[in-house]
Amino acid sequence: MTQELPVAVLGASGRMGSEAVAAIQAAEDLSLVAALGRGDDLATLVSSGARVVLDLTVPEATYDNVCFAVEHGLHAVVGTTGWTPERLDGLGALLERTPSTGVLIAPNFALGSVLATAFAAQAARYFESVEIIELHHPDKVDAPSGTALRTAQLISAARSAAGVPAAPDATAGGLAGARGADADGIPVHSVRLRGLTAHQEVLLGSPGEQLTIRHDSFDRASFMPGVLLGLRSVASHPGLTVGLEGYLDLATNKDPHA
Amino acid sequence: MTQELPVAVLGASGRMGSEAVAAIQAAEDLSLVAALGRGDDLATLVSSGARVVLDLTVPEATYDNVCFAVEHGLHAVVGTTGWTPERLDGLGALLERTPSTGVLIAPNFALGSVLATAFAAQAARYFESVEIIELHHPDKVDAPSGTALRTAQLISAARSAAGVPAAPDATAGGLAGARGADADGIPVHSVRLRGLTAHQEVLLGSPGEQLTIRHDSFDRASFMPGVLLGLRSVASHPGLTVGLEGYLDLATNKDPHA
Amino acid sequence: MTQELPVAVLGASGRMGSEAVAAIQAAEDLSLVAALGRGDDLATLVSSGARVVLDLTVPEATYDNVCFAVEHGLHAVVGTTGWTPERLDGLGALLERTPSTGVLIAPNFALGSVLATAFAAQAARYFESVEIIELHHPDKVDAPSGTALRTAQLISAARSAAGVPAAPDATAGGLAGARGADADGIPVHSVRLRGLTAHQEVLLGSPGEQLTIRHDSFDRASFMPGVLLGLRSVASHPGLTVGLEGYLDLATNKDPHA
Amino acid sequence: MTQELPVAVLGASGRMGSEAVAAIQAAEDLSLVAALGRGDDLATLVSSGARVVLDLTVPEATYDNVCFAVEHGLHAVVGTTGWTPERLDGLGALLERTPSTGVLIAPNFALGSVLATAFAAQAARYFESVEIIELHHPDKVDAPSGTALRTAQLISAARSAAGVPAAPDATAGGLAGARGADADGIPVHSVRLRGLTAHQEVLLGSPGEQLTIRHDSFDRASFMPGVLLGLRSVASHPGLTVGLEGYLDLATNKDPHA
Repeated sequence: MTQELPVAVLGASGRMGSEAVAAIQAAEDLSLVAALGRGDDLATLVSSGARVVLDLTVPEATYDNVCFAVEHGLHAVVGTTGWTPERLDGLGALLERTPSTGVLIAPNFALGSVLATAFAAQAARYFESVEIIELHHPDKVDAPSGTALRTAQLISAARSAAGVPAAPDATAGGLAGARGADADGIPVHSVRLRGLTAHQEVLLGSPGEQLTIRHDSFDRASFMPGVLLGLRSVASHPGLTVGLEGYLDLATNKDPHA
Repeated sequence: MTQELPVAVLGASGRMGSEAVAAIQAAEDLSLVAALGRGDDLATLVSSGARVVLDLTVPEATYDNVCFAVEHGLHAVVGTTGWTPERLDGLGALLERTPSTGVLIAPNFALGSVLATAFAAQAARYFESVEIIELHHPDKVDAPSGTALRTAQLISAARSAAGVPAAPDATAGGLAGARGADADGIPVHSVRLRGLTAHQEVLLGSPGEQLTIRHDSFDRASFMPGVLLGLRSVASHPGLTVGLEGYLDLATNKDPHA
Repeated sequence: MTQELPVAVLGASGRMGSEAVAAIQAAEDLSLVAALGRGDDLATLVSSGARVVLDLTVPEATYDNVCFAVEHGLHAVVGTTGWTPERLDGLGALLERTPSTGVLIAPNFALGSVLATAFAAQAARYFESVEIIELHHPDKVDAPSGTALRTAQLISAARSAAGVPAAPDATAGGLAGARGADADGIPVHSVRLRGLTAHQEVLLGSPGEQLTIRHDSFDRASFMPGVLLGLRSVASHPGLTVGLEGYLDLATNKDPHA
Repeated sequence: MTQELPVAVLGASGRMGSEAVAAIQAAEDLSLVAALGRGDDLATLVSSGARVVLDLTVPEATYDNVCFAVEHGLHAVVGTTGWTPERLDGLGALLERTPSTGVLIAPNFALGSVLATAFAAQAARYFESVEIIELHHPDKVDAPSGTALRTAQLISAARSAAGVPAAPDATAGGLAGARGADADGIPVHSVRLRGLTAHQEVLLGSPGEQLTIRHDSFDRASFMPGVLLGLRSVASHPGLTVGLEGYLDLATNKDPHA
């Protein structure tokens, strides 16, 4: 019988936290040994026997939480935002002293979204044109979405590195805003529609063909497979990893017939 | 045996004209009796025995061509632009004197596009949110496309007539242009991508659901079924009709089981 | 001030029923005067002062419920299945005796789905090819979905009535099932994918163009606008109506510039 | 100034061949030094000074052509089908004797299609469900398409290797064919629609999310960027490569901020 991996959750009573607690309890190979909320004593992490800590707290607390875990030899998977370059540097220095400990900081746990962004960045250098359409519910206050901005940035960097010229565009007039926002040189179009949750499409075009990579996020449930993958994999990825894509097996698929 | 309908084409050597000549010749129920180019004598229309004239010329010539046809009792199907309100009024006055003659002026012969616009306008009053995405090749100079602007106008008019409030939108910041162009209050997003021809998507959303109406135009061949439908139907639609949708049977489909 | 319309709900404690109760309570122009469950006395419908009865019960109860309402001069909106031709005939005969009473029997309250089906049927006669793709969660036991079968039936009837020949298909070999199910001569493809709810796409193709009509149902909330539309409209539609499309304004949109 | 790469084309008068000749002539870094048709002497390949041979001939001729090129120290890029395992073995043995010579055998030169298949295979292990929809013009005789079968095979192999169980499917009745063809355990749905060329969608689903990878091929022009990439890269890939994906840079994109 496989040994269950003991996991402790910080921020266990939040929306993400409570879903994560349920997902860990439902997973046969994981064992929930501690579920802490605001004000609970971090020492419980050690006494509970946890090997991995899942931090789903708030930007004000996450740095101290993760440093505490690392100092006590616990691996950490982090979904909280607020990791400035200074904090990342501080954590990196700490990890150098415990080289077998792993930390994953993942701004996005939706596997499909992470894969879509990675694929778009890989493909971007092979096409003349690339644009992004992101679609969300109309209660969202920012446009474009953070995911779209990050996707544009990765696409732009990949095209620059490969020496791809700017996409052709003969637009010479019309209405302001029609051609979308300019995010690192990539046009981004933000649709806000009642009924939707969070969706993104990257369109890539060359003479005679189009490649479309679309991700639909219907529900917060979509984050749980990524959270579980992180918990299961962090011990075998010592050091600091930023982005769940670092844990995915994205090597070229070889043709089994070749 | 059915009698063939004799058709004359004006502007027969242009791109649309030569495709129309081929389509008429291939149609079993139509007979091409005249194919005129620039400088040819309009009297040929009468001497050829044509009953319907197809005008695919230029804005400068179309008004005189169509008036000549109507004055000689010939029906006319018109794909040329340049019909100002004054010209439409002049033609309308002329048609009152020959009440059995029909004229169709069609800014768009693509049946799918005409249907998509009509459906979008019909549906628009039943949804909280509506936005338009139009996608074209990158050599297009205007953004948004004329079809998108017209679709927005019809959608906006339908929502106003039904007293539908503006779509919700909490956007409070971000990059300029992200939310698209404002066309009669409807957001329109213009994508320009190498490989594409002419495409349009109308997205309609309400709590828990989305309706999408998309039209793809891959090729000028898509105009020919609409041209043929116009030629076959114009004699049974006396007077002036603007827009191919006036010839389409868009009455509610009744359930055969009801 | 507008008078509120008094509504009674039968089957108020079921999943649809409890959502309908909440939606009626939230609507300013409707007033919930009775919410009955299994075993409650139908006489309450009368004593409550309701003018419209919403039946969301079970096939075994719906016929008696609706007949009781009609006999007491109450309009009825019905979302329950089980209406055989015999029951429809019986109800029709009853309604002839109270000609001002209206009954709506709606197998589908999702406005977007009803519109999508109506549009697909209207468009079907104008295209060479038409196929249906329906996509649902993998716990669904039937394939194709009932909505897809009904859409295929309406499309097939519309094409037959217009004399449209069968769609071209040169398929001469390959794997069984690749070309989908044959539903009244229309190919239907059923996708079952974790993460999805209920989605349908009708694809229509002719030389050089494609028209796609897609409906996505993400949530049961999508039924409520149709339920409310039914409740508000039934008094002005005396007699029996089957299908919410009978209450929708689907007349051709005329160009405001024509 | 960069030296131009001298290229010879075999099968230069075929449909693919004549497009390739034009594309090579338009490329600034390539020089067309020979364009041979059926019956022309292969010795011309050597006398022309070509360094790379592009074979776009027929299955009966391609093996001898490529062996001739390799024996004379010329690299080869091959778009012709008919490469049986025996032929691949024979060519492999020949290449061992000239270890600096490269041969690319590419069943598909459309970069977008090759990328779409590679991405689908990479993503397949991370989702519960996966299905394929391929859409083509109605004159196609085989269903599913060869590309869909190959995609299914790669997806199936990737899921097996990762120990992913079969996708859930509760279908218990309905119409034959609704759930598509079974290709290596992956459902494949083949749509045939007038107006379309060649299109494929891979749908991947998990709780709360969907990833869609779609490729549209509108025109044979879409093969040329892949042909040129092959010609430019073959000299730096000694030995035998099957599939253009072997020449693409599909390594994980690293976050520039990590």
